[in-house]
Amino acid sequence: MAPPVDAFVPLVHQLADLSAAIIAPLFRTPLTVDDKDDASPVTAADRDSEAAMREVISRAYPDHGVIGEEHGSERTDAEFVWVLDPIDGTGAFITGKPSFGTLIGLCHNGIPVLGAINQPILNERWIGGQGLGASFNGKAIACRPCPALNRAALYTTAPELFARPADAEAFERLRRRAKLRRYGCDCYAYGLVALGFADLVVETGLKIYDYTALAPIVTAAGGVMTDWENRPLTLASADRVIASGDLSLHREVLAVIAEQTAL
Amino acid sequence: MAPPVDAFVPLVHQLADLSAAIIAPLFRTPLTVDDKDDASPVTAADRDSEAAMREVISRAYPDHGVIGEEHGSERTDAEFVWVLDPIDGTGAFITGKPSFGTLIGLCHNGIPVLGAINQPILNERWIGGQGLGASFNGKAIACRPCPALNRAALYTTAPELFARPADAEAFERLRRRAKLRRYGCDCYAYGLVALGFADLVVETGLKIYDYTALAPIVTAAGGVMTDWENRPLTLASADRVIASGDLSLHREVLAVIAEQTAL
Repeated sequence: MAPPVDAFVPLVHQLADLSAAIIAPLFRTPLTVDDKDDASPVTAADRDSEAAMREVISRAYPDHGVIGEEHGSERTDAEFVWVLDPIDGTGAFITGKPSFGTLIGLCHNGIPVLGAINQPILNERWIGGQGLGASFNGKAIACRPCPALNRAALYTTAPELFARPADAEAFERLRRRAKLRRYGCDCYAYGLVALGFADLVVETGLKIYDYTALAPIVTAAGGVMTDWENRPLTLASADRVIASGDLSLHREVLAVIAEQTAL
Repeated sequence: MAPPVDAFVPLVHQLADLSAAIIAPLFRTPLTVDDKDDASPVTAADRDSEAAMREVISRAYPDHGVIGEEHGSERTDAEFVWVLDPIDGTGAFITGKPSFGTLIGLCHNGIPVLGAINQPILNERWIGGQGLGASFNGKAIACRPCPALNRAALYTTAPELFARPADAEAFERLRRRAKLRRYGCDCYAYGLVALGFADLVVETGLKIYDYTALAPIVTAAGGVMTDWENRPLTLASADRVIASGDLSLHREVLAVIAEQTAL
């Protein structure tokens, strides 16, 4: 049984405020954009905000682990591990589009139990956790019912990110059957599911720091977030995720993914 | 020679304020979403805000024409024709994502001469016109230099919107050579080009009311916006558009589009 996570909420707010104070002044300013080993872009805003958050965490909880997109992993076998993505959607950030987010997640024994999405330009903050419910700028939020794929608004960041052919085919089946499909949202799409205005996010290629903060928010809002084999997400999860605001929809999506494509 | 368009700027602000007052209160509220004949979604926010704008225009300039996405065309052979899309990006609007925009364009003898993008949730307003320059919330803006596709941030709304196979192949060539590609932005992407944070938008399937307001903004910011054959956009244009912040980049894009694909 996981301990109550509400004790960590003030720290989550502190981390979100701190990262926003570093990131927001750099939005829509000329920035040096470096390429990482995987060719994804990174800026001083990513690196400096993560470093600042790590310093605060290590001072408050020196025995906690930290995994961050920009500065690596420490004490990943600790009971509590923080998982940080200072700017999820760096491509949006560097092109001046305020749909990126700072992701702050906390795992207990490898299970995501608390998460936040902070959008520092729009001043939008989602927090969700076990026993806490989910909130948006302090107000309780909930996913909406959507029992069938043909009524669902489906989000994904980009169709070409489904790198394996079988995954791309599965997404294509989902895309064709969904009511509405939208692209380019990164973490923000999961926030829209938790707010009850989108129904479904299906992605592959996600890293630990992409999904750890999101799962507790979607789950606490009444949705479900698993990998493509319906397993709960953990620090050891595969990279393919489904976030669904409705359990019936989630079941249908799993079935559509599992269909064999005759080629 | 087109007459000065600055006389119409106060009306553009009035239309933007009026539509925002109708649209913003409906954002992230439960709305009835209807399907149009082309299966695209529409709500009371689209219909009512366009109707209100049309009424103001016809009172101020009864001899002007109006073309709107929701309520059709009147006097399209007039010297001045207003072109309205009350919510460009209805899919974003109904899923709670503030990247849609209200588009207000003015044509003189069929040529777009004045345009505005208004984002009523973020209170962001782009205006551009012949002899006016381009502005964002009242401040002058300009496109950035980007002489080559392999340095460019490329936006398009969705790759599946390139319905003709040859167009899809042309986009795929552009996508692979661009530095960065992002999806899902509708009119907002053109605003990012005018702000100098993105370099390129390439799309097909656009309607008159999708591009008329955008061309004067991109052009007045120092960029170039044409169809895929490098023709200026007019009321009689084809549906394939390129908006580029840099003229050299525009030439390269036209050349890449014109390449034959061996299949």
